[in-house]
Amino acid sequence: MAVATQSLEELCINSIRFLAVDAVQKANSGHPGLPMGAAPMAFVLWDRFMRYNPKNPKWFNRDRFVLSAGHGSMLQYALLYLMGYDSVTIEDIKQFRQWGSKTPGHPENFVTAGVEVTTGPLGQGIANGVGLAMAEAHLAAKFNKPDAKIVDHYTYVILGDGCNMEGVSGEACSLAGHLGLGKLIALYDDNHISIDGSTDVAFTEDVSKRFEAYGWHVLHVKDGNTDLEGIAKAIEAAKAVTDKPTMIKVTTTIGYGSPNKANTAGVHGAALGNDEVKLTRDNLGWQYEPFAIPEDVLKHTRKAVERGAGYEEDWNKALADYKAKYPQEAAEFERFVSGKLPDGWDKVLPTYTAEDKALPTRKHSETCLNKLAPVLPELIGGSADLTHSNLTELKGIGEFQKGQYQNRNIHFGVREHGMGAICNGMALHGSGLIPYGATFLIFTDYMRASIRLSALSDAGVIWVMTHDSIGQGEDGPTHQPIETLASLRAIPNLTVIRPADGNETSGAYKVAIEKAKKNEPTLLAFSRQNLPNLAGTSIEGVAKGAYILVDSDGTPDIILIGTGSEVSLCVTAAEKLTAEGKKVRVVSIPSTDIFDAQDAAYKESVLPKAVTKRLSVEAGCSFGWHKYVGAEGDTVSIDRFGASAPGGVCMEKFGFSVDNVLAKAKELLG
Amino acid sequence: MAVATQSLEELCINSIRFLAVDAVQKANSGHPGLPMGAAPMAFVLWDRFMRYNPKNPKWFNRDRFVLSAGHGSMLQYALLYLMGYDSVTIEDIKQFRQWGSKTPGHPENFVTAGVEVTTGPLGQGIANGVGLAMAEAHLAAKFNKPDAKIVDHYTYVILGDGCNMEGVSGEACSLAGHLGLGKLIALYDDNHISIDGSTDVAFTEDVSKRFEAYGWHVLHVKDGNTDLEGIAKAIEAAKAVTDKPTMIKVTTTIGYGSPNKANTAGVHGAALGNDEVKLTRDNLGWQYEPFAIPEDVLKHTRKAVERGAGYEEDWNKALADYKAKYPQEAAEFERFVSGKLPDGWDKVLPTYTAEDKALPTRKHSETCLNKLAPVLPELIGGSADLTHSNLTELKGIGEFQKGQYQNRNIHFGVREHGMGAICNGMALHGSGLIPYGATFLIFTDYMRASIRLSALSDAGVIWVMTHDSIGQGEDGPTHQPIETLASLRAIPNLTVIRPADGNETSGAYKVAIEKAKKNEPTLLAFSRQNLPNLAGTSIEGVAKGAYILVDSDGTPDIILIGTGSEVSLCVTAAEKLTAEGKKVRVVSIPSTDIFDAQDAAYKESVLPKAVTKRLSVEAGCSFGWHKYVGAEGDTVSIDRFGASAPGGVCMEKFGFSVDNVLAKAKELLG
Repeated sequence: MAVATQSLEELCINSIRFLAVDAVQKANSGHPGLPMGAAPMAFVLWDRFMRYNPKNPKWFNRDRFVLSAGHGSMLQYALLYLMGYDSVTIEDIKQFRQWGSKTPGHPENFVTAGVEVTTGPLGQGIANGVGLAMAEAHLAAKFNKPDAKIVDHYTYVILGDGCNMEGVSGEACSLAGHLGLGKLIALYDDNHISIDGSTDVAFTEDVSKRFEAYGWHVLHVKDGNTDLEGIAKAIEAAKAVTDKPTMIKVTTTIGYGSPNKANTAGVHGAALGNDEVKLTRDNLGWQYEPFAIPEDVLKHTRKAVERGAGYEEDWNKALADYKAKYPQEAAEFERFVSGKLPDGWDKVLPTYTAEDKALPTRKHSETCLNKLAPVLPELIGGSADLTHSNLTELKGIGEFQKGQYQNRNIHFGVREHGMGAICNGMALHGSGLIPYGATFLIFTDYMRASIRLSALSDAGVIWVMTHDSIGQGEDGPTHQPIETLASLRAIPNLTVIRPADGNETSGAYKVAIEKAKKNEPTLLAFSRQNLPNLAGTSIEGVAKGAYILVDSDGTPDIILIGTGSEVSLCVTAAEKLTAEGKKVRVVSIPSTDIFDAQDAAYKESVLPKAVTKRLSVEAGCSFGWHKYVGAEGDTVSIDRFGASAPGGVCMEKFGFSVDNVLAKAKELLG
Repeated sequence: MAVATQSLEELCINSIRFLAVDAVQKANSGHPGLPMGAAPMAFVLWDRFMRYNPKNPKWFNRDRFVLSAGHGSMLQYALLYLMGYDSVTIEDIKQFRQWGSKTPGHPENFVTAGVEVTTGPLGQGIANGVGLAMAEAHLAAKFNKPDAKIVDHYTYVILGDGCNMEGVSGEACSLAGHLGLGKLIALYDDNHISIDGSTDVAFTEDVSKRFEAYGWHVLHVKDGNTDLEGIAKAIEAAKAVTDKPTMIKVTTTIGYGSPNKANTAGVHGAALGNDEVKLTRDNLGWQYEPFAIPEDVLKHTRKAVERGAGYEEDWNKALADYKAKYPQEAAEFERFVSGKLPDGWDKVLPTYTAEDKALPTRKHSETCLNKLAPVLPELIGGSADLTHSNLTELKGIGEFQKGQYQNRNIHFGVREHGMGAICNGMALHGSGLIPYGATFLIFTDYMRASIRLSALSDAGVIWVMTHDSIGQGEDGPTHQPIETLASLRAIPNLTVIRPADGNETSGAYKVAIEKAKKNEPTLLAFSRQNLPNLAGTSIEGVAKGAYILVDSDGTPDIILIGTGSEVSLCVTAAEKLTAEGKKVRVVSIPSTDIFDAQDAAYKESVLPKAVTKRLSVEAGCSFGWHKYVGAEGDTVSIDRFGASAPGGVCMEKFGFSVDNVLAKAKELLG
């Protein structure tokens, strides 16, 4: 087609296409196909519908946009650049996928302002979108007044075939339908191509029908390549339906415009090549050099800056009005958004003495959650259908359901992975919410991709995991974590805490809440079974990761190192060894991550190099413990799968008894 | 109701119910609700339809049964007992959920003959069922002749609401619909209760419509509590549809028969209590003591023994006929079933010299797979939509598709978790198939629950994982494994191998194939990027897990320990150190798991205690390496997330350069 025939909108859309084509070509790496096909829907959305302020990407009431098909990152970078965000300049686009750039291979919220969540692992983004929409629904129900709306935005998601094949998206979308999240609008880039070729090879289900089955409002734009009015009408229709989320299937051609590669897997994840880039330019009548954008285009797209300033100004006025009418609510809203904790919040955390009743740490966790709930109204979450096992209900606070979004107890259903990605989305809404998600510790395996993303993308989520060892008992090896703690401790930026009793549980929540407000996730591991409260445990101790619980006069002969339910074994074994004249130190180490981050002097004070006889005791695998017990140390651990039997029997049979700890300690002492 | 009015079938069904009620009550642990509600459908299935031989639970051509709702294990144990399996006696049932029993909390195929797959983690079983049905379809297409059918059985699955909420089931069922697996019949125990109460709190989607969207044949039995003929007719109708899998929604009452607890979450996962047990007995007119089964019932149900012997006899005749007509195919079939490898199979594995071209280990993996495919016709698998990145295509061998089940290249779609559970199902079909599933190493996070189950349940799968480090490059931190190897090494019974070059890749496949035949899974980690072939690497070395690649005269001053792509860095650094007069050993350690299993003498010979200056080099986290480097050693590792940049740049920036290895080594040498 000749350039003369191109409308301004077509020029804008081709600008997105060629920014993607040229950036991928320059990097010789990336995914041009999706941006080329999805540019029309993305442009219509960002140009005609979305409310955002390019000069303040964090403006609270902005519409949230998620590119769930994160490999098409150049689509998002092109939009950010065209619409006038400072975070992505044309120079940044030239640095696509290079070290230190603002334009990494997949969208990363912690690198590029204007990116809401980190996507790339497929299906996560749409599930994050469900979380974003839930956060909006909750805050709107909580803060808005009949005469004053301060929370009122849409969540838009572009997702692809890959996202729709992933189970995590199905889980989250089923819940979104159940909850009737009317302000969630997903545009499905239906290009029938995935990496292996046509989706015909593996994916022939009726996606629209599936979403209808979930309770979504479903629309179809048959020609997503050129029918801009059709796209716009569909988005309008989506907004008109307020009691259901909408999925707009937009049928497109991947790599639209490339004469030889459009509609093939060849354009999905590789540069077009110089020859095909030229042919595509000719085919689309694109007469501009790489990275050159027509003046008319920028003049048009940058109107978003003025528009956005206007949106924010209007909202600021509304907020001022709200403040005047509802000063108390406004103060709370502002504290939420500030990310600050209320003064003295942690005073509600209970402490215990050794005389207090033995309880499971999951029960202490329930107490903490319920003590915190009134002072931290930003605490919101629930369990993947194990509420009364995980003990995560906030009592008297109501269920988050359709039309009851002001409530804070979320039923995620048996959907661990969806729960994980939803919690990430709620945290990354950036409104101060502290989401928590709960299941049995073993089922972190189902949601590991989301837990990892919480750590990577600065999502301040609290993962509440109970039934943290073979002490779980009768459910047997499918339900008993062995390697689980080790595998979680290995994740960068994730703090794992396994408290020994009531005080350490309070300490664990203190850390977790503070970290959540710093946008860092924490995973808490709690026991199913009763544990005694121990003399000397403390909230402060947890904050150091490890600390001396029992000590001897002078240099110890041996150090017993325990976590969680096994600390009490160490204490009792230490008493017996001391009675036999040994010098014994017991170190409680609720969090290896936190301990590792202490200064060398503190670490040396707890685990002096001179003491080489060290025994770790944890009802999990030995993997990772050699760092703390050293070459001459030993572990009481389990390097096999568990077994179905009452929890106490499992503990005894697998060697978690005072006698066995004593025997192992004596072996070390020689 | 009075006992007199009970038909024999009702008595049989109540026998199942009360075995469950009484076993759970005795254990004071377990899940009576599902068996009480699902007993009618299970009984009709096992009594009227399923073909199996209780006295030979491994009879090849049996129908496969999977209790995907594994918490209802007593349903399955009751059936095994009633039908005359030797694996579950009444004494075993009395030992439900006790140490060492044959009746663990969830069905475990490695404990109880007659249990096909290990279930409990929800959604896995139905996905295993898809794998079982795919195995049957493949073997039937491969071996059956127009005049001789030796592979011909159904796969039946009972799944619950929880299974249907899990994404893994959606992934696998979407693929099953695509593949048109007509001999897969799933009975959905629609009891609308999960642990948190009514499914109304989180799960209100239209499940039947969703399965229709997947391309399934869907039926509904409205009264699954008493309408035995309705159940039977539905199963008949399911069998009549041969080009689609069938989902029969069977609406039931959880805890049917319990006057106060039926249709509540209270009966899901806890014993009824003595009072309610009595009331339930009264309500159902059950006049028998705990664990006492009426003679008439046993007389009827044990007919399964004779029936089963007949089925097997008929099949043996058919097999004999087949042998006579098709001796060559019969020999292959018998080798398949025997689990033996063909003589000399491993001779096809290529070896290399240091002069051979540098290639990515994923490319060597492709070569191995394609060398092995002709000699190992039992090798079948594919990738989760990354075929040409993982390089897992068996060339010229065709795609496993609807009506093309004889082929061996499976397109799993972007469904890692579904792929995992399907591969487990294919392996546990017990027919000698060696399934493999591939994706990027990082996406093991999506399928970890299935990988763990392969290790727990003796599923001889090969997990082919490529792009095994930050060397992955531009895709960035969402796609770059850091903690992934550590988290996988921590799983019991899973062998993880990360080969350094061509020879080690061949060695890795030798181990993996042999382990698969011993029903043990192996996970292989391959590089995206080119790696040089190293002098001294060997197939035999891999079999020891670790071995000396470069050595000095006399006791080394330092040992450099590398895996995979980092071994060559160690070799080059060693050359430089040697040139400077240092005594250096290089140990290649492709598998810590295998090395850990060697005898103490071998381990001492490779890593002598006397040499305390040790440096590990692996482009992953340090977690777990202290075991090998000791208290005085160090690691070249990455304890943060990666970054988007070309792979070589990432490697350099994160310290995986000869210079940095040298610097770290010199620091250790002092």
